[in-house]
Amino acid sequence: MGLINRRDVFIEWGDCDPAGIVYYPRYFVMFDNATVALFAAAGLPKHEMVTTYDIVGIPMVDTRSRFHIPSRWGDTITIESRIAQWKRSSFDVEHRVFKGSDLAIEAWETRVWVGRHPNDPERIKSQEIPQDVKTRFD
Amino acid sequence: MGLINRRDVFIEWGDCDPAGIVYYPRYFVMFDNATVALFAAAGLPKHEMVTTYDIVGIPMVDTRSRFHIPSRWGDTITIESRIAQWKRSSFDVEHRVFKGSDLAIEAWETRVWVGRHPNDPERIKSQEIPQDVKTRFD
Amino acid sequence: MGLINRRDVFIEWGDCDPAGIVYYPRYFVMFDNATVALFAAAGLPKHEMVTTYDIVGIPMVDTRSRFHIPSRWGDTITIESRIAQWKRSSFDVEHRVFKGSDLAIEAWETRVWVGRHPNDPERIKSQEIPQDVKTRFD
Amino acid sequence: MGLINRRDVFIEWGDCDPAGIVYYPRYFVMFDNATVALFAAAGLPKHEMVTTYDIVGIPMVDTRSRFHIPSRWGDTITIESRIAQWKRSSFDVEHRVFKGSDLAIEAWETRVWVGRHPNDPERIKSQEIPQDVKTRFD
Repeated sequence: MGLINRRDVFIEWGDCDPAGIVYYPRYFVMFDNATVALFAAAGLPKHEMVTTYDIVGIPMVDTRSRFHIPSRWGDTITIESRIAQWKRSSFDVEHRVFKGSDLAIEAWETRVWVGRHPNDPERIKSQEIPQDVKTRFD
Repeated sequence: MGLINRRDVFIEWGDCDPAGIVYYPRYFVMFDNATVALFAAAGLPKHEMVTTYDIVGIPMVDTRSRFHIPSRWGDTITIESRIAQWKRSSFDVEHRVFKGSDLAIEAWETRVWVGRHPNDPERIKSQEIPQDVKTRFD
Repeated sequence: MGLINRRDVFIEWGDCDPAGIVYYPRYFVMFDNATVALFAAAGLPKHEMVTTYDIVGIPMVDTRSRFHIPSRWGDTITIESRIAQWKRSSFDVEHRVFKGSDLAIEAWETRVWVGRHPNDPERIKSQEIPQDVKTRFD
Repeated sequence: MGLINRRDVFIEWGDCDPAGIVYYPRYFVMFDNATVALFAAAGLPKHEMVTTYDIVGIPMVDTRSRFHIPSRWGDTITIESRIAQWKRSSFDVEHRVFKGSDLAIEAWETRVWVGRHPNDPERIKSQEIPQDVKTRFD
């Protein structure tokens, strides 16, 4: 199954739009933070990980989100995050958002492990994900 | 084919992250604005449309985005938006982002046409999309 | 002296700009959330307070922020917030941001206690702040 | 008087909060973009300027904003920006926001012209602003 990280997120006034519900791009911010928190839970805080492994980051290449139940300011949601699949230089993350026991949102991400391009420091290039990174999530 | 709306978007310093490229949740803000601009191009500015048709909004229920080419601050991208499909009370929007002639991002949205719930003004409820809304995009 | 609320805030990747430091408008989001947290610490969660006192909110009319020390993603800052002064229908909030023991930012806010305008529900109007709200911060 | 740059900004749905008015931290984003636009109007697009003058950016050290009239989604505001004062390594910007002919917001910024620290590339250090930068705004 692997590591699952859970975090509660309080929905702020400024997260919401004139309809009083979360402005959906804000969820992608929460998911990005949740992926960082998942890595931190595996012993890999992002700001240390980029130095340790000499990478630029883990940019998104494909993401989808299905919104089942809206949330309002003052609500607290729980985000459950896990690595769904490791590939050579990319990986899939899955987030599930709960309001109480109800599944409110499902989201999927594919991210790439990238470093500086060897021939052009302005560009980035995917790299093989180290095995010891992967095993931390077992 | 139907109406296609094109808009240029200048990538601001504040749209970008420490890697110097657009922080991807910002693209969803640009896409939300692009859908509003598509409706405006069809003669339906959102702030008038919600009054005319007595709706709360057109909330997102499902969205996906595939990121092929990153953009940096100072870049200008072009977003092409169109309605891909009309259903009874929901519709699909498609956005394609170009950097020059290169396809940089593809995104899809499913949104619902919602009004206040007849029995509970705190809740929202999907409604049938008026035919004259749909025909404006032909 | 009155109630002081302290909260730690983790600086996320998406809070930062291409210089790798917090994009300063993000601090105003943190301060808005910190003011909400200060009221919650006084027993007045905003989403309940607006109903209890029949107000629309506590909009900002004047704010200033002085930035002494930048923060980077991966840092944790501490925000200390307190009511600096109560007036009839407005109040001043003061935030002080610390990195360790160093004062990193000072910020001041003047906010107004507003309800719906009695003659026009589209407009807002300042109201006298109830005494029992003020005394909760003693 | 010096160069004044004017730009119209359309208030988007996602700029607004549950009260239906602009979430005030969003104004600081608009002001940051307006300062970049002011420099671009002076022939100094930021993404070129940082390379030409070998600087990291023009970070904010002090900003204040007074909000007189709220704006709603669907509104268009006009932001007028100018350099109020040049100092050796810092400068003041003034923004005035108009709704029609009404002054809606006044804002002031003090920013610093900074480069990499000569002894530590991780740190930044203020530098003297080149005279030819200043004269472009006359």
